[in-house]
Amino acid sequence: MQSTPHERPISVPHQPVGELVLEAGRGKAFRVSAGTKVKLTNPYGTQAVDFWAFNAADLDEYVSTEHIRSVNSTVPVNRGSRMVSWRRRPLVSIVEDTSAGDHDTLLCPCNADLYAELGCTGHHRSCAENLHEGLGELGLDVPFTPASVNLFMSVRAEPDGTLTRLLPASRPGSHVTIRAETDVVMAFSSCPQDVTTINGPDRTPRDCLIEVLADAETPA
Amino acid sequence: MQSTPHERPISVPHQPVGELVLEAGRGKAFRVSAGTKVKLTNPYGTQAVDFWAFNAADLDEYVSTEHIRSVNSTVPVNRGSRMVSWRRRPLVSIVEDTSAGDHDTLLCPCNADLYAELGCTGHHRSCAENLHEGLGELGLDVPFTPASVNLFMSVRAEPDGTLTRLLPASRPGSHVTIRAETDVVMAFSSCPQDVTTINGPDRTPRDCLIEVLADAETPA
Repeated sequence: MQSTPHERPISVPHQPVGELVLEAGRGKAFRVSAGTKVKLTNPYGTQAVDFWAFNAADLDEYVSTEHIRSVNSTVPVNRGSRMVSWRRRPLVSIVEDTSAGDHDTLLCPCNADLYAELGCTGHHRSCAENLHEGLGELGLDVPFTPASVNLFMSVRAEPDGTLTRLLPASRPGSHVTIRAETDVVMAFSSCPQDVTTINGPDRTPRDCLIEVLADAETPA
Repeated sequence: MQSTPHERPISVPHQPVGELVLEAGRGKAFRVSAGTKVKLTNPYGTQAVDFWAFNAADLDEYVSTEHIRSVNSTVPVNRGSRMVSWRRRPLVSIVEDTSAGDHDTLLCPCNADLYAELGCTGHHRSCAENLHEGLGELGLDVPFTPASVNLFMSVRAEPDGTLTRLLPASRPGSHVTIRAETDVVMAFSSCPQDVTTINGPDRTPRDCLIEVLADAETPA
């Protein structure tokens, strides 16, 4: 039962300072310690990146979009948003953002069932698969797919309650910087969506850049 | 990994046709077969009721608010909304609604950590606890708390991205009728929130009425 902490700690080395490419349509998970900043750059401005974070001291504690909205009293996340877990603790925060902002918290991470619904036959990579694959590469697993924070994804809640999927609004080279507020596992997925236009009108997933920063690099 | 069905079937008897009181601040879970309609009446109009549903043939398949918003392209749910699982299948639907509508999908079910944040000391009942307690009474468990559909709860997404918690807007005696689209376990929680005004300005949780209907009672 969720109100009792499970304390499911992990033994995964921390990701060293440096760069890595988040390949188009692929995912990556890694552990960083409290205070570490991770800069995610969108070279084309069009790529949606699904994001999750888990408490490294208890993998059952995950960033929860329904608690993010409750704590911040906002629907999207932006610079300054605390991304809290279901235990109401900020696991990570957005400390810098040069993108169009308003990162989506409303839509699901794409998964195999969504691509089947869109008419894809055979295997199609998905953000849900990228999450579990990324965790699996660290020897970790979670028994379900938490809702993702959809960085660089533009979705608008209309006054009449409907939801509008917009084209990506960020400029090439935009970035967000996420700070770990505790020891966390972060997971990123370059969304493999190539049927709808959520990654731009040409429906082409693209590489992004992840930089794990040394403390001195970002005095913010 | 979530994209592989787990097939975790249950052996729980179906709830018989009849009435039951959803006590103020308490929860209840039960199983109903495909086609069964469940009418939830709000005698005072003020009580928020958190709602979940699980596939009885595979308890790992649950109604997912992020997929509901994706499939319906709406933020709140209303009459006609398909409440789908993360497998994109409608587990239940809202087939009748005499309330103010616009049932919330944005805010978290309250839990122990939220009440601690609000300054409550000692044990305070919560919707998350009610979910797990209700499932436990059926001999069932789920390893986390899915986001709830918050029936009769009024929350507005503003054009600037902020989120406004409104007073309850339904009239006394309002009801919603939910139809099982497959064999499901439904869970209801009369929200025990008595610190904020989400259950009305007098901050008093109240009883609601649940009716499991015979087919002939609701030709809709």
